[in-house]
Amino acid sequence: MAGNTFGKLFQVTTFGESHGGAVGCIVDGCPPGLKISTEDIQKDLDRRKPGQSKITSPRQEKDKIEILSGIFEGKTTGTPIMMMVKNKDARSQDYEKLKDVFRPSHSDFTYEKKYGFRNWQGSGRASARETIARVASGAIAKKFLKEKLEIKFLTYVEQVGDIKTEIDFNKVTPEQIESSIVRCPDKEVATRMYQSINRLIQDGDSVGGVIKGVIKNVPIGLGEPVFDKLSSDLGKAMLSIPAVKGFEIGSGFTSAKMRGSKHNDLFEISPDGKIKTKTNNSGGIQGGISNGEDIYFRVAFKPVSTIRKKQDTVNLKGQNVKIEATGRHDPCVLPRAVPIVEAMAAITIMDHYLRSLSVIPAEAGIQSKITFL
Amino acid sequence: MAGNTFGKLFQVTTFGESHGGAVGCIVDGCPPGLKISTEDIQKDLDRRKPGQSKITSPRQEKDKIEILSGIFEGKTTGTPIMMMVKNKDARSQDYEKLKDVFRPSHSDFTYEKKYGFRNWQGSGRASARETIARVASGAIAKKFLKEKLEIKFLTYVEQVGDIKTEIDFNKVTPEQIESSIVRCPDKEVATRMYQSINRLIQDGDSVGGVIKGVIKNVPIGLGEPVFDKLSSDLGKAMLSIPAVKGFEIGSGFTSAKMRGSKHNDLFEISPDGKIKTKTNNSGGIQGGISNGEDIYFRVAFKPVSTIRKKQDTVNLKGQNVKIEATGRHDPCVLPRAVPIVEAMAAITIMDHYLRSLSVIPAEAGIQSKITFL
Amino acid sequence: MAGNTFGKLFQVTTFGESHGGAVGCIVDGCPPGLKISTEDIQKDLDRRKPGQSKITSPRQEKDKIEILSGIFEGKTTGTPIMMMVKNKDARSQDYEKLKDVFRPSHSDFTYEKKYGFRNWQGSGRASARETIARVASGAIAKKFLKEKLEIKFLTYVEQVGDIKTEIDFNKVTPEQIESSIVRCPDKEVATRMYQSINRLIQDGDSVGGVIKGVIKNVPIGLGEPVFDKLSSDLGKAMLSIPAVKGFEIGSGFTSAKMRGSKHNDLFEISPDGKIKTKTNNSGGIQGGISNGEDIYFRVAFKPVSTIRKKQDTVNLKGQNVKIEATGRHDPCVLPRAVPIVEAMAAITIMDHYLRSLSVIPAEAGIQSKITFL
Amino acid sequence: MAGNTFGKLFQVTTFGESHGGAVGCIVDGCPPGLKISTEDIQKDLDRRKPGQSKITSPRQEKDKIEILSGIFEGKTTGTPIMMMVKNKDARSQDYEKLKDVFRPSHSDFTYEKKYGFRNWQGSGRASARETIARVASGAIAKKFLKEKLEIKFLTYVEQVGDIKTEIDFNKVTPEQIESSIVRCPDKEVATRMYQSINRLIQDGDSVGGVIKGVIKNVPIGLGEPVFDKLSSDLGKAMLSIPAVKGFEIGSGFTSAKMRGSKHNDLFEISPDGKIKTKTNNSGGIQGGISNGEDIYFRVAFKPVSTIRKKQDTVNLKGQNVKIEATGRHDPCVLPRAVPIVEAMAAITIMDHYLRSLSVIPAEAGIQSKITFL
Repeated sequence: MAGNTFGKLFQVTTFGESHGGAVGCIVDGCPPGLKISTEDIQKDLDRRKPGQSKITSPRQEKDKIEILSGIFEGKTTGTPIMMMVKNKDARSQDYEKLKDVFRPSHSDFTYEKKYGFRNWQGSGRASARETIARVASGAIAKKFLKEKLEIKFLTYVEQVGDIKTEIDFNKVTPEQIESSIVRCPDKEVATRMYQSINRLIQDGDSVGGVIKGVIKNVPIGLGEPVFDKLSSDLGKAMLSIPAVKGFEIGSGFTSAKMRGSKHNDLFEISPDGKIKTKTNNSGGIQGGISNGEDIYFRVAFKPVSTIRKKQDTVNLKGQNVKIEATGRHDPCVLPRAVPIVEAMAAITIMDHYLRSLSVIPAEAGIQSKITFL
Repeated sequence: MAGNTFGKLFQVTTFGESHGGAVGCIVDGCPPGLKISTEDIQKDLDRRKPGQSKITSPRQEKDKIEILSGIFEGKTTGTPIMMMVKNKDARSQDYEKLKDVFRPSHSDFTYEKKYGFRNWQGSGRASARETIARVASGAIAKKFLKEKLEIKFLTYVEQVGDIKTEIDFNKVTPEQIESSIVRCPDKEVATRMYQSINRLIQDGDSVGGVIKGVIKNVPIGLGEPVFDKLSSDLGKAMLSIPAVKGFEIGSGFTSAKMRGSKHNDLFEISPDGKIKTKTNNSGGIQGGISNGEDIYFRVAFKPVSTIRKKQDTVNLKGQNVKIEATGRHDPCVLPRAVPIVEAMAAITIMDHYLRSLSVIPAEAGIQSKITFL
Repeated sequence: MAGNTFGKLFQVTTFGESHGGAVGCIVDGCPPGLKISTEDIQKDLDRRKPGQSKITSPRQEKDKIEILSGIFEGKTTGTPIMMMVKNKDARSQDYEKLKDVFRPSHSDFTYEKKYGFRNWQGSGRASARETIARVASGAIAKKFLKEKLEIKFLTYVEQVGDIKTEIDFNKVTPEQIESSIVRCPDKEVATRMYQSINRLIQDGDSVGGVIKGVIKNVPIGLGEPVFDKLSSDLGKAMLSIPAVKGFEIGSGFTSAKMRGSKHNDLFEISPDGKIKTKTNNSGGIQGGISNGEDIYFRVAFKPVSTIRKKQDTVNLKGQNVKIEATGRHDPCVLPRAVPIVEAMAAITIMDHYLRSLSVIPAEAGIQSKITFL
Repeated sequence: MAGNTFGKLFQVTTFGESHGGAVGCIVDGCPPGLKISTEDIQKDLDRRKPGQSKITSPRQEKDKIEILSGIFEGKTTGTPIMMMVKNKDARSQDYEKLKDVFRPSHSDFTYEKKYGFRNWQGSGRASARETIARVASGAIAKKFLKEKLEIKFLTYVEQVGDIKTEIDFNKVTPEQIESSIVRCPDKEVATRMYQSINRLIQDGDSVGGVIKGVIKNVPIGLGEPVFDKLSSDLGKAMLSIPAVKGFEIGSGFTSAKMRGSKHNDLFEISPDGKIKTKTNNSGGIQGGISNGEDIYFRVAFKPVSTIRKKQDTVNLKGQNVKIEATGRHDPCVLPRAVPIVEAMAAITIMDHYLRSLSVIPAEAGIQSKITFL
C-alpha cells in the first residue's frame, strides 16, 4: 500500500536505500519447482551494474546477489524468495554537502516535504540502486516464462537524444544487443550513440532516449479487463522506473494520426491454420488481453538529472543557492536501463500468467506445461 | 483481482455489459460527509453520452444515474456508494450477425479465447458503456477534491488526426472547452477538427487523436515510491481506457531528445516565499511524488475500430469472411472521451490523497481541510 | 480497503443499507461457464429471509434477487456479477425516535463516532440486511464447488442458550436440517430449542447460540501459509458476521486441555490406498492447508441486541435516557444465520480454490475438472 | 497473495525457513519519524526465543536482529523496513530421517501435496521460527502505538491444560507477567502450570492452553465494517499463529448461553462526562468498531505436535511406519507464544489505526498526536 509492491499473484516487494544495509526484495507467489541459482540472477544484475564500460558510471560495485529463503535443493519451494545485495560502506561525505540542498529534478524536495525529512545519502530510497531488486525478481520471472512457455524478451536502446534506429525488431537477436556497449542492435547507429554519449561526459551533461521492448510467444488470454489490462499494467510497470516520462504500446502516439481503415489489424487464417492478424498495430494486445501476436512497446527516458554543470537551486532554509555535482555519473542511463525494462516486462507477464490460471480452464493447455518436478 | 477494481483507498469497482441489466459501480472508501446529489453525477454523464452533436453517435441514450446506497440525507456516509444506469432493451438483432465473427481490432477474438465464449451483444463487457461507471465515480472524486483541496481539472482535445492545437494550457478555461463541440478550446483548430470528423462520417472511416489533461492545485506529497508513483498510477489509469495506446507525463517523449542541462527544473523562491520550479518539464511530479506544480499529461487514442468500410476477417469456424458494420458510430471518440480521462485522473488523485494521510502528519495541514459536518 | 470486500480471487464486494435503495454485491472473479439462474440464488435467500416461521421476525420481506450483469445465455461470463435486492419503502417513523439514542450493544455509538454522523434508519449499513449479499454470493460459490469439485456444506444450529445437541455430524443430512424450524437436525433437541425461543418472544428477550459448519470433499492443498491459512480465513469470514463472538476449528478450545499424544491425528493408509488420519482433531486443516479430511468448525453468536425490555442508555446530547424497542425482532438469529455461515464458508473455500490454481500444477488434476463449456 | 503478507496499510511480509539463510520481514507503511533501535526489537525477540528457562526448548539460538533498511539517523523514513535474523548452520542430519515421513498433525503432509515437494529441514517454512518476523514487526507497531496513542498491551497465559487462572485482567501488570516463567500473572496458578509442564518433559508429551490478550486505550473508531471488522481481523491474526485452534472476543463462546437483557452493555455517562458502558461483554468492539473500552480476547492453542512418544504414521511411499522424535522440544508453547500473540495484536491495531485516518477527520484529534519531527 505504501507503493513498494508490484504484482498481485507474482508479488515483488522491494526494500533498501543506496547506502547502508542492503537493497533487495521478497518475491512472493513464484510457483514451486523452478530451478534457480544465484548465477541465473547475477547474469542480469551484471547487465545493470555500473562500471561496465567507458560510458557508464565508473563506480565499481560488484552487486553480488544473495538468496536467503525460498529455494531448497536448487528449486523454488513456493514460499517467499528473499534476495539482497549488501551496500558497500557509505561514503556519506560525498553527500554531506547535498543534505541541505534540493537537487533540481531529483526527488530531494518531494521526499523532504512528504516524509518530513529524508535520507540524503545517495538519494536514499529514490536511488536507482532500488532497481537491483527489480532486475533480480525479473530474472526469476524470465526463467519461468522461458522454460514453461517459451516466452522471449528482446529489449534494446532505440533512441539516444535525436539519434534513432529504424531497425525491424524481427531481425534483432539478443546477441546483437548484448554485443553493443549502448545495447542498440543497429551497429552503425550504436556507434553514433556511443560517440554522442562520450561527448556528453566531457560536457558534464546528460541525455535522454527511448527503449524498445518486445515480448514473443505470449499465450493468448493474458490481461484482465477492464482496469488491469495487460497494456495498462505494462504501462504502469514502465512508468514506475526512475526517469521514465512516457509509454506507448503498438502504434502508440502514431495511432493518433491514423484512420481506422488503416489501423485495424485484419484477421486471417495463417498457413498452419491459426488465426493471425495481417498487421500488428495493436502491439499484441486487444481489449486489454494478449492476442498471441508479438507485444511491443516504447519507453521514453528523460536525461539524467545529475549533471556536472553548475545549477541554480534552493536549500532547506529557503535560500537561492548554486549546486555543482562532483564525481562521475552516467550521462545516459539507457544502456543500463535495458535489463530493468526487461525485468519489469517479465514481472508483469508472469503476474498476468498466474492470474489467467483462475479463468482459463486446464483444457486450454497453458497450465499443463507447468510440470516441474 | 479480475481487474474490475481501480484504486486502493478510494476503490472503484465497475460492473455491467452494454445490453441487458445495467452498468454501474461501487465506490468504496469515500470519506463521510460529502454532499452528493444525482445532479452532480448526471452533469458529467451528459458530457459522455452519445447523441450530443452531429459528430457523435446518434443513439439516444439518456443514461440516467441512480444512486442506491451510501448517501443519507444528501451526504456520503462512508459506506459503499452504488450507482448504476439501466441499459435499454437489447436490440440484439443488430449484433446477431456479428456473433460468429471477430471484428478487427476489437476484443471479440481475445474474449472468446480467454473466457471460452463471449457476450456478443454490443461488445459485452468490453463496451465503452463501462466507462459510464468511471465517469460517475470520477464525479464524486472531483467534487471532493474541489471542495476540500480546491483541485481543478482541465481536460481537452489537443489533436485529431494530424490537426493539433499548440494552445498554452494556462490560458484555457473550462468554458472554452465545453463550448466547443469537439472539446478543443482553440476555436480555429476546433473548427478544422469538426470539419475533418464530419468528412469521416461520409467516408465511413474513423480517426485517432490526443487528449491533454491538466490538474491544478495538487498538494505536495501525493504519490508512493517506488511502484505506485503518482505518474505510474496516472499512466495505468489512462491506459485502461478503451482505445488508448500511449501516455506521457510532462515533457514525455520529447524528453528523450533533450539534455539534462535543458530539461532540469531549477528551483527558486517565488515572490510569496514558496519553493517553485522555473520550468515544469517534470509535469508536476518528481520522484513519483507531486511537487505542487501543475500536473499535465497527454493520452493517445487510436482510431475507433468500428468503421463502415468492408473489411477482411475470420469467423468462429476459422473461415476467411468479410465484415461490414451498419448503423452509426462515433468516427472520433475524443470529444466524448474527455470526461472519461478527467474522471480517471480524479479517481487517481483522490486515491493518492487518501493514501497520503497515513504518511503526512496532521500538522502539515492537508487533512485539516476535511471538515464536513 | 474500507472493509466491504471479502476474498482475493473470488472477490465479493457488498453495498447497501437497510432502508432506501437496495442491498447487493458485485462478485468479481467467478470463472466463466457456470450455469446460474435467479432460482439458484433465491433458494438460499429464502432460507435467510424473515417471516419463515413463528419464531422469526414477522416482517414480510420478499427479498427478490435481481441479477444485472455477468450472466449471458444463463452462464457466467467471467465478468463481474452484480446482484441486488431492492429495499421496501422506508418506514423511517419507526426509527425516528431512535435517531438520537445509542441502542446498547448496537453499532449506533461506534458509527456515530467514526463517521461523524450515521444513517439511523434500521441500523443503516450495520443492518443484518447486508448479509443478503453474502448469501447471494455464497450461492454462486456453492454451486461452483458442488458441480466441479463435489464439495458439500452441512451447516446447522448446535446450541441455543444452554440447549445443545451432541449429534455426530456424519449422521446429519441437509434434509434433517431444513425440515427443522430452528435448523437443528436433532429432532428432540430442536423441539426444546423451539420452545425455549418461543418463551423468549413473550419475555421480550433474546438468546445466543452456536452454529456448526462442516465442509466435505475439500481437495488437499487449499490454504496459503503463513497468514492466509484456510483456518484463519474461515475464522475471519465467520467473525465478520454480525453478532459472532467466537470461532473454533476442529478440536478448538477443547484442545487447550489435551495432551499431544491424544490430540495428534495419526496417519494411516486407508483401504483404498489413500493417506488418511485416524482421528480428525485438526478439523481437516494442517499447517493452514486442507488435508482432505472433513473441515468442521463452530461459530458462537451472542444474543441479539434488540430486545423489548426497557434499558438504560445515553443520547446524542450525552444524557442518561431509557430506551424500549417496539415491533417484533428475532429473539434468536441462529436459524436464519445458518445460510449466512454456509455462504461465508463457501466464499472462503472458493477463493482458496482459485488461489491454489497458481501453485498446484494441472497434473494434480484439480483444475482439469473445470470444464464448463 | 501467496499468504505471506498481513495488513493493508501497515503491511508485514515475512520470509524464511528454519534452516539456511535467514528469517525476517519487510514492514511497509510505517509512518516516518518513529525512533527505532535494534534494542527495541531485540527485547521482544528475547521473550520469544528458546532456552529462556528449564521448560522451554534448550536450543541456544541468539536470534540477533539486523535492520537493513528503512531507518536513517535512528528514525523510520517511511520506506520499507527490512529486518532479519540469520539462521545458524543447518544440522540437517537431525531431520534427514524425517524427510520421507509425515509427522502426525504437522504440515509435512499438506506441504508435500500442495507444493509437490517440501523443505524437510526443521519444518521449512512452517517452522515456528517464522514468528520471529512477526515479533519484530509487532515491536515496531507497539512502540508507535505506545508513543503516539498510549495504547498498552497486556498478554498472558490464562490456561495450561486444565489449570486456569481466574485473575481479573484489570489487576494484572506487565511486571507480574514477565516475572513468571510461564508468563501467568497469578503466582499460585503459575507454579502449578510450571510443575505440570515439567512433568510433561519427563513423559515426552505436550499440552495446550489459552492465552488472554488485553488492549487498553484504543481510540474509538478503529475497524472497518463489514468484513474487516476489528474483531474479524484480530481473529484472523490470531488464527494465523501456528497451533491456534480457537479465538473469542469479549464474552465469546459464553455469550451463546446468555440472554440479551444480561449481555447488552448499557451506556452511561462517566464522571468525566464521557460515554462509557457499564459492562464490557462486547470486548471493546461494537459493530466491528472499537468503542473505547478495553479490548480483550482469548486464543486457544493445541498441544505441540512434536512429542517424544512413538507414533504411527505413513511415509512418502505410502507405507505404515513408526516415528519417534529425538532431541528436546517445548512441551508447551504458550509462554513463548505470549509475545507472538501480542505482536499480532499490535500489527492489527496499527493497521486499523492507519486505515482510520482516511475516514476520521483531523479535527477528531487522533492524527494530531502524530508529531514526530
